[in-house]
Amino acid sequence: MELNNKKSAILISVGDELLIGQTINTNAAWLGEKLLAFGVEVVEMITVGDDKNQMLRVLHESHQRAELVIITGGLGPTRDDLTALVLGEYFQKNIVFNEEVFSWIKAFKEAQKKPVNELHRKQAYLPEDFTYFKNPAGTAPAMVYRDNGTIFVSLPGVPYEMKALMNEHVFPWISKIVNRKIFLTKTLHTAAVPESEIASILNDFEENLDVGVSLAFLPSLAKVKIRINSRAATEKEAKTALNKAEKEIRKLLGDMIFGENEDTLEEVVGRLLLEKKQSLATAESCTGGYIAQMITSVPGASQYFNGSVVAYSNKVKMDLLNVNKATLEKFGAVSEETVIEMVKGICKSLEVDNAIAVSGIAGPQGGSPEKPVGMVCVAVGNIENQVVDTLYLNHNRKLNIEKSAFLALNMLRLFLQRS
Amino acid sequence: MELNNKKSAILISVGDELLIGQTINTNAAWLGEKLLAFGVEVVEMITVGDDKNQMLRVLHESHQRAELVIITGGLGPTRDDLTALVLGEYFQKNIVFNEEVFSWIKAFKEAQKKPVNELHRKQAYLPEDFTYFKNPAGTAPAMVYRDNGTIFVSLPGVPYEMKALMNEHVFPWISKIVNRKIFLTKTLHTAAVPESEIASILNDFEENLDVGVSLAFLPSLAKVKIRINSRAATEKEAKTALNKAEKEIRKLLGDMIFGENEDTLEEVVGRLLLEKKQSLATAESCTGGYIAQMITSVPGASQYFNGSVVAYSNKVKMDLLNVNKATLEKFGAVSEETVIEMVKGICKSLEVDNAIAVSGIAGPQGGSPEKPVGMVCVAVGNIENQVVDTLYLNHNRKLNIEKSAFLALNMLRLFLQRS
Repeated sequence: MELNNKKSAILISVGDELLIGQTINTNAAWLGEKLLAFGVEVVEMITVGDDKNQMLRVLHESHQRAELVIITGGLGPTRDDLTALVLGEYFQKNIVFNEEVFSWIKAFKEAQKKPVNELHRKQAYLPEDFTYFKNPAGTAPAMVYRDNGTIFVSLPGVPYEMKALMNEHVFPWISKIVNRKIFLTKTLHTAAVPESEIASILNDFEENLDVGVSLAFLPSLAKVKIRINSRAATEKEAKTALNKAEKEIRKLLGDMIFGENEDTLEEVVGRLLLEKKQSLATAESCTGGYIAQMITSVPGASQYFNGSVVAYSNKVKMDLLNVNKATLEKFGAVSEETVIEMVKGICKSLEVDNAIAVSGIAGPQGGSPEKPVGMVCVAVGNIENQVVDTLYLNHNRKLNIEKSAFLALNMLRLFLQRS
Repeated sequence: MELNNKKSAILISVGDELLIGQTINTNAAWLGEKLLAFGVEVVEMITVGDDKNQMLRVLHESHQRAELVIITGGLGPTRDDLTALVLGEYFQKNIVFNEEVFSWIKAFKEAQKKPVNELHRKQAYLPEDFTYFKNPAGTAPAMVYRDNGTIFVSLPGVPYEMKALMNEHVFPWISKIVNRKIFLTKTLHTAAVPESEIASILNDFEENLDVGVSLAFLPSLAKVKIRINSRAATEKEAKTALNKAEKEIRKLLGDMIFGENEDTLEEVVGRLLLEKKQSLATAESCTGGYIAQMITSVPGASQYFNGSVVAYSNKVKMDLLNVNKATLEKFGAVSEETVIEMVKGICKSLEVDNAIAVSGIAGPQGGSPEKPVGMVCVAVGNIENQVVDTLYLNHNRKLNIEKSAFLALNMLRLFLQRS
């Protein structure tokens, strides 16, 4: 087992609920991204049902082709959960009662003030000679086993249990047992700038990267993630090279970058408001509350978010946001003049320091030659100062709303950072 | 090729973006669900990168095990799109320029008022002897081919293109060419009732189903989908049996059922409001605009939705929703008394016929022994009449918000249907 250079992994997802489309497999994408950042390339993802023979077949095939095999699912306490039994059969290990694992299960249920039943006891019957890790978020432990140059990892299918076990136990365990170079990674997030522009700004820098350092760009709606990878013989070397690259990228991109690693834009905006001890409200037309729900998805948002007025009708814009009738008649509801008045109006009525206002045509109906579907006016600021912009988007209704909301929140971030 | 009983399919998803976790594979789940409803069981889902040898290997393996193989992805015009070439190589077909396919591509680009370039021309070079279907939403056609008892279908990876091609062309084509029984399906959606209760109400009915009819339950957050499958020799027989089963289930479950097939709760509520020519607004605390954005995700929502006040602070509840200070002091912001006043307040200030009001503790902080995290008060109604309820949820913040929003919207649906 080497893993000291980029090596290959196969992911096996187990569960009938995946095959019948009841559950979308988000585990595989999460693992694919994390493993790559860890220096391991996923070469295949396989989903099979709760079926012993299918599971044995894909275990056998994966064993021959990959150096790391991660199996998610099939670890629950019911009859259709077969992974522990199948792994036992595949490696010819007895299934025995594991006292330590059972003590973890008991402790977990006791913390929930819930009784331990026969089904929980069943979850402690596990293959001999495997290594087990305690599940911080559930009853099924992680199991790991090395055989013939391949590492096998079995994890529960519940996403937050799987992620907790990978982060707390499995990644550190693999790092320790395998003879590998140090591989560090950091992700920077940019907003509102196309991938081509980011790549062009970083072009010269990228051509002269230090040995062991590489970049990857992952674009999504109005956002580009820049992943910096750094590989070296020692942690110190890897860290020094990573920090140097990060510093350079931050210098080149400036405030195009809004955050790093697990940061979300709504969290970053929340932190800025807490730092400045300022408050926020939103006045939304076409986004229909989408920005407000983004902001309030962050725990503790009530410390800086007072509320929102979703003004879907002109009457609400006038009554609750104090938009002038004359402005609506002269410039229309979708206009920079209107969103500026919406910012001022909501700052006043909700008594906040900052506001975001959005008005646009999300589609599919409601467009005109002058104001096409996808035209969205955004203003951010306070009673004295506002920054305003008009976006022209060309997605479907859902994506037009999501992209407007994200870009509006980003405009507020820049307003807060620059003021 | 039979497919006249339940037969097996393998799905192959192609694309490096899936392996590195940049894209979550939603196509496989959609196909899994649709194929099952069509009477075909997916036994395995495989994801491989844009790699010729890997693609050839999984084509070969799938050919031996499945009667239907669906390949998504790899049909774009760039160098890393290999599916057409690989299928040609696998079936030993020449790659030739297809005039008809090129005419579709030209027509599609002309409708967009965009030029046809060399890359589009490349998309018309395709394996001989395959059958092609016009893509209504893009340039890459669907390709189908039968060999040795297996049907191969190749589709673009863009979800809405893939879905349009399956619905408009591939399902009808498979239905025609294979000798199969008629298989009809209908899905009914219930809200706010646990799967165990639904199953118990339908228990006697399910034990006495007509021959060829079967039921499946698919639970998700506060929702259960009941899929009725009907299989018979003729369309008429299948339809009669399906209708009979549906009628019986609707009698047993009554207004627990909110919709069918592709219906969403927010669409159903929208249709009810349009029928009644009534309007709606929301007053939201812990859901933070989530209900408003659900309602406004439906095209045309402006016909019945006036807007929302997200009242995250008590001051906003008093100022904009006219909640009495005494009520907040005596009963607290999270109380049935407060949400009733929020309904009345928003009906008045936004001049609407109906309102939804929600106040609760989404978590993870903010709970107390009397008012724990997950406690959510909901009221629906108008100035004269309100229905109120208190929910006790036990999920994380995100799911507590989503579930509260869904259940609140469902309470409004019942209020509208019963009044």
